[in-house]
Amino acid sequence: MNNNKQSQIEVLCIGTELLLGNIVNGNARWLAEELARLGIPHFRQTVVGDNKERLTEVVLEASKRCRVLICTGGLGPTPDDLTTETLAAAFGAPLEERSEVLADIKAKLTAKGRPMAASNCKQALLPMGAAVLSNPLGTAPGMIWSPLPNFSLLTFPGVPAEMQAMWEQTAVPWLQQQGLTSGIFRSRLLRFWGVAESSLAEQVAPFLEQQNPTVAPYAGRGEVKLRITAWADNAENADGLIAPVEKELRAIGGSNCFGADSDSLASVVLAALRQRGETLAVAESCTAGGVGAALGAVPGASDVFIGGVIAYANQIKQALLGVPADTLASHGAVSEAVALAMAEGARRCTGADWAVAVTGIAGPGGGSAEKPVGLVYFAVSGPSVSFSFMRQYGASRGREWIRGLSVGDALDQLRLAL
Amino acid sequence: MNNNKQSQIEVLCIGTELLLGNIVNGNARWLAEELARLGIPHFRQTVVGDNKERLTEVVLEASKRCRVLICTGGLGPTPDDLTTETLAAAFGAPLEERSEVLADIKAKLTAKGRPMAASNCKQALLPMGAAVLSNPLGTAPGMIWSPLPNFSLLTFPGVPAEMQAMWEQTAVPWLQQQGLTSGIFRSRLLRFWGVAESSLAEQVAPFLEQQNPTVAPYAGRGEVKLRITAWADNAENADGLIAPVEKELRAIGGSNCFGADSDSLASVVLAALRQRGETLAVAESCTAGGVGAALGAVPGASDVFIGGVIAYANQIKQALLGVPADTLASHGAVSEAVALAMAEGARRCTGADWAVAVTGIAGPGGGSAEKPVGLVYFAVSGPSVSFSFMRQYGASRGREWIRGLSVGDALDQLRLAL
Repeated sequence: MNNNKQSQIEVLCIGTELLLGNIVNGNARWLAEELARLGIPHFRQTVVGDNKERLTEVVLEASKRCRVLICTGGLGPTPDDLTTETLAAAFGAPLEERSEVLADIKAKLTAKGRPMAASNCKQALLPMGAAVLSNPLGTAPGMIWSPLPNFSLLTFPGVPAEMQAMWEQTAVPWLQQQGLTSGIFRSRLLRFWGVAESSLAEQVAPFLEQQNPTVAPYAGRGEVKLRITAWADNAENADGLIAPVEKELRAIGGSNCFGADSDSLASVVLAALRQRGETLAVAESCTAGGVGAALGAVPGASDVFIGGVIAYANQIKQALLGVPADTLASHGAVSEAVALAMAEGARRCTGADWAVAVTGIAGPGGGSAEKPVGLVYFAVSGPSVSFSFMRQYGASRGREWIRGLSVGDALDQLRLAL
Repeated sequence: MNNNKQSQIEVLCIGTELLLGNIVNGNARWLAEELARLGIPHFRQTVVGDNKERLTEVVLEASKRCRVLICTGGLGPTPDDLTTETLAAAFGAPLEERSEVLADIKAKLTAKGRPMAASNCKQALLPMGAAVLSNPLGTAPGMIWSPLPNFSLLTFPGVPAEMQAMWEQTAVPWLQQQGLTSGIFRSRLLRFWGVAESSLAEQVAPFLEQQNPTVAPYAGRGEVKLRITAWADNAENADGLIAPVEKELRAIGGSNCFGADSDSLASVVLAALRQRGETLAVAESCTAGGVGAALGAVPGASDVFIGGVIAYANQIKQALLGVPADTLASHGAVSEAVALAMAEGARRCTGADWAVAVTGIAGPGGGSAEKPVGLVYFAVSGPSVSFSFMRQYGASRGREWIRGLSVGDALDQLRLAL
């Protein structure tokens, strides 16, 4: 093995549609996840268009840096699919027609009732010395080719399903045989709500420096995540490295840590209520069904979440939730008193044990000096507890941001009350 | 201008999470689309991790190839955010604290009631000579910096909303001033529902071949889009190229074409009802608030959309929507009769002119041979019309797919009824 190379593997995605922004590069993400799972670190991904000159340049550069270059795209039958011929020319290898590939293409087209077009013959051409990386799903085969000592190219079509099948059936065993895979990576994602990324990162700063397991923070809309990733020779040992770190991070995060991996605020709330044998309803104004939709997104929600009222207009707050007209008149629809009356009304009219209510100003219109856009009142009402709270999200990030955070905060405070 | 450079612009996305496959590179796609729209071709995208050595290498390489390098990611407050310091070091420039940036960060944190952490101070450091690319949404500013003659770096945070706002407000005008944009690209996005991408693409096949304007299809969850993009020396001429093509495409799409650009099924339905002076309510079972949330996402929805009932449990279908117990018993909750009773009940209990109802089996549990997962009944009820319809989405694409298509089909049939 040549240890002068700075990396084992790189990913190169070929396609003008990627440079035009027509599609998102899902293949790069999928391959990255696979490489991490296999314990093969990769340090660079490149995207180029279907252009001979620029593809040649990128491939020659990569051949100096890495041992294996994974290429996707440009294997189809049309004139803009020029990956194979460009790679062959880049390393000065002649193309040759592979009769077994030609027969395979013909058989696949015949099975679909399609004629063999001249353009399909192009797909049977591979550089001399390349092995066929066969495609169980489509007509375009890939190749495994070592045009230089200590440098191999693997090519895949851009069609995700074909690329994935070829990867799993042929590329992974090949990578293992090459001794490129090493040990196993396992990761655990801890999920937090109610804490800023910068603040959490500061609290866990020493962990962000350590090597195995590594800890990395990510922020989404309101949610902050810490990913713990461990490398070991087997899964059990990797999990053994993760467990103590997870325990410490959970202790630091305290009640802000609401779950791990595929948990969501909604799934955690539903699980807590399920354990108590209690039910939940919602009363939503500005979120307009967003809290209900988040709860309904969890499979099996229906044994806990029974429904609720979307009370966008005041007439519905009164008619269905029984919010008193004078409460609306004296406090305004966006108020603590109305939020509490909505939550209590939702329990009453649905018979649920618990209810959560949201009423606020999502904007861009409807704000005032006293009640600006981004002001939201919430209430939680349960068998022996009832409370309200307020958030001021500000107007700058817009309506969807305000509504999204409102859904999260409503579920989060309900979670903490349980 | 130095014409030895082979390209004007490249995109560099920085983030270990991209190399681990934790997230898809949506920023690269968004930027690619923007560059295409602005008429600035780019020929290469690169992804590297949050690693000083490798980031330095990539940036120095790019500085030899392109005039402008767009960098995203690594501007946050945590130790693994090292883009700014690495770029400064790569070109031998000292970092200096910008008092105006520090004041801006402090003001933003104070407005959110958060303390200024030591880590936030890092975000105020920029290389000497760099201009601040201000961030209207978050604490992390970017920069516009020319460390070498004929080479400029633009940095953006990885958070998409922040990157996009900074791009639109500051980067685009800067690119135009630099003379990088040529002519003008204008585009128009036609939106379709109820037709498959492949079928629409076949119907409009001749348009997909033409050059100016170009027409490109995109598919989302249920929605299909055709983007018409024209290039001309000014906006008026570009729009003049688009108009006749739009007319023809709309004629081909017929009633499947529901709108253009920022229209959504919800916004189109709300606009049609607003014009009639009529109101709308929802009654949702399996979508659990998703239709309401889609309507509520449209600014100004509240003058038309008054609310509704999330009737997940049968008791709520009965108690709030007045669905007769024997209808539920004899037809089952997922049935045409119950959908109709829900829609009529929603009109009755809310006083709305129109109502749309959804009841179905989103899975993964709850299916049977007679009523499989993916079976959904809908009803629309209005002042002088009432009808139901059924969709069988199948189980294979999962709960979120079924719920998402249900929301779209409910709104689409209401749209067609109007």
